Amino acid sequence: MKRDFMKQIEFLLEIDKEKDILRQTHTTSKKRENDAEHAWHMAIMLYLLKDYANEEFDVLKSIIMVLIHDIVEVDAGDTYAYDEENLLTQKEREDKAANRIFSILPQKQKEELLSLFKEFEQGESPEAKFARCIDNFQPIILNDYNNGGDWIEHKVRKSQILKRNVNTKKGSEFLNNYLEEIVDKNVKKGTIIDN
Amino acid sequence: MKRDFMKQIEFLLEIDKEKDILRQTHTTSKKRENDAEHAWHMAIMLYLLKDYANEEFDVLKSIIMVLIHDIVEVDAGDTYAYDEENLLTQKEREDKAANRIFSILPQKQKEELLSLFKEFEQGESPEAKFARCIDNFQPIILNDYNNGGDWIEHKVRKSQILKRNVNTKKGSEFLNNYLEEIVDKNVKKGTIIDN
Repeated sequence: MKRDFMKQIEFLLEIDKEKDILRQTHTTSKKRENDAEHAWHMAIMLYLLKDYANEEFDVLKSIIMVLIHDIVEVDAGDTYAYDEENLLTQKEREDKAANRIFSILPQKQKEELLSLFKEFEQGESPEAKFARCIDNFQPIILNDYNNGGDWIEHKVRKSQILKRNVNTKKGSEFLNNYLEEIVDKNVKKGTIIDN
Repeated sequence: MKRDFMKQIEFLLEIDKEKDILRQTHTTSKKRENDAEHAWHMAIMLYLLKDYANEEFDVLKSIIMVLIHDIVEVDAGDTYAYDEENLLTQKEREDKAANRIFSILPQKQKEELLSLFKEFEQGESPEAKFARCIDNFQPIILNDYNNGGDWIEHKVRKSQILKRNVNTKKGSEFLNNYLEEIVDKNVKKGTIIDN
């Protein structure tokens, strides 16, 4: 028991590094958000907005997915949603990271978390579909609040957002409709490029 | 539905401020930790260490408590565990904050989250006991990793930590025993004052 416990403590100290992985998104106070803050915000969002999901789902399982989905970035770094070059190598880098980091845990928990991470990545189960929907939803809400600053900075095109949002719709038609309203509003304002 | 949804979005943007509430604890990379990072770390910790709890408990309920327990600090600020002056007014400041912030939500969710927050504060249910145990456990693990820097800075005495840890024991005898080993080790090292 003590041996497994020390592995758990080692893992919990290792993932602390997520607090230093900066994303491109800015918080409402205009600082760059890190992965730990993003995951915390997503988890509460998922819980409060769960009734808008297209399908019934296991809320605890989906929240754990959300809490752990960016741990791989401790090794692989953050890949911006519209960085088309780095998106090509993202899967390989993140799979390698998942194997190293989750292997710090005792075998049974390693298998559980690795399996949840893969399920999230595949995006096919109801839990993964809603978790991924929230992963897209959270930064758009923040960025809209910040008058589209991140979209302006990265010269983001409407077609890029809509391509990514195919997955949002699988989790929640309702939330996706709201995101489309936000995108259209920002296209009119000129903060998202219309193409 | 849309009216309730807009209240939920307003609440989710309001709690974003938690990412700027700094605690006295430092992360493994030696930066000051904020409340959102702390809550994220606690939620994963609670999930991975759940088998060490003294009693069976509802894991989802306990995780939601952990995720929301510091939202009141958006108004009330962080009160350091060993700041005996500000601890006297903490409850009053935090209850006022809870009423203001959770009232942004639709009525049903307001009642649910306010009730979860109060249950956490009372620390009597199995979910609250384990959540509070983790709330004490997380900073001690970080601070021990950082060679007791926070204890040195605040001249913390062993008796202060043990007084606070009465609640840790209610959640998990196992985790509390490990914390006591850490405290004894740090007293020997001179990072915690022996009294």
